[in-house]
Amino acid sequence: MKLYDGGRAPNPRRVRLFLAEKGITVPTEQVDLGKLQQRSDAYTAINPMQRVPALVLDDGTVIAESIAICRYFEALQPDPPLFGRGALESALVEMWNRRAELHLLFPVASVFQHLHPAMKIMVDPQVPDWGEANKPRVFDFLRFLDGELKDRPYVAGAAFSVADITALIAVDFMRVSKMAVPEDLANVRRWHAAVSARPSASA
Amino acid sequence: MKLYDGGRAPNPRRVRLFLAEKGITVPTEQVDLGKLQQRSDAYTAINPMQRVPALVLDDGTVIAESIAICRYFEALQPDPPLFGRGALESALVEMWNRRAELHLLFPVASVFQHLHPAMKIMVDPQVPDWGEANKPRVFDFLRFLDGELKDRPYVAGAAFSVADITALIAVDFMRVSKMAVPEDLANVRRWHAAVSARPSASA
Repeated sequence: MKLYDGGRAPNPRRVRLFLAEKGITVPTEQVDLGKLQQRSDAYTAINPMQRVPALVLDDGTVIAESIAICRYFEALQPDPPLFGRGALESALVEMWNRRAELHLLFPVASVFQHLHPAMKIMVDPQVPDWGEANKPRVFDFLRFLDGELKDRPYVAGAAFSVADITALIAVDFMRVSKMAVPEDLANVRRWHAAVSARPSASA
Repeated sequence: MKLYDGGRAPNPRRVRLFLAEKGITVPTEQVDLGKLQQRSDAYTAINPMQRVPALVLDDGTVIAESIAICRYFEALQPDPPLFGRGALESALVEMWNRRAELHLLFPVASVFQHLHPAMKIMVDPQVPDWGEANKPRVFDFLRFLDGELKDRPYVAGAAFSVADITALIAVDFMRVSKMAVPEDLANVRRWHAAVSARPSASA
């Protein structure tokens, strides 16, 4: 198999962190997003959505979408479990991973995509008002998350999960849009320090 | 358990269709979105995100996010499988469900939320330019999907799955924004007729 990776973009990093937590190594090819290689004919044939990452299996089957790739590896190698164990825990991990996506990662990405000058060539049309509208959503969710993290170590509960990976890549991606976790959100800051100290965070 | 449902909104309908396909009946309470009941103190205590649906278990545990609720029931009652079977099929269902969300359901919803006058009380701020920017995304994805459906009956492959449910609720929700599947997309129209003819579609 081969993983088409995409440098510092959040979704490729999500898969790299996931694989690092699992201790899985996959042959990788970089897609240079700065050069718009994801729109080349060669890559479009792999993923018509022109997005990274994508995993190509030995028989040519393509799995795109970062969470689909993560689930594939979770099924191949269940330990350590990163999508929860059992019906309830798995549902709660899914809930928190989606909350971290819908209310944190996507708003953070929208601020970057619709306000950063470097994204003008990739996002057509940029809608600056939409970028601005997403800023308060980021901070509203972080404040909510801070309350949740008062009584538990990780986003979805007592165990580290893919929801922590999603929240970590989202928080780290705030930097490119000059946003930062507010000083008074002590629980988010404690959580962020803890997950950033894991060896996987450098992936 | 009790399911907090939300009438004609797409995500509550997604769970109702899923349960109908499984043949599962759950006690339900309607949350009146027109009266903003999802923002009441009582409902905010159940789901702080103020969104429907939400499933409350007998011990008080809350599972929010429609796909998390669907996954919970999939784990409780695996047949018929709606998230795929085995590592590869499950990954492909996840990929297609996400594509149907990111490139169809979310754009369709954004057109409605940011352009429909009735949504002014719920979406603050409405960004009309963002609504307009999402219209071509809807039709681009439907055209792509039409090519995919040339060689297979369902969105994720040979079997009906949650990806068909997501795509169906998205296509049906186009109507409120006065969008329609173009006449020349024969494969999408054939697929839509087939999935709409299933008993679950009336859920």
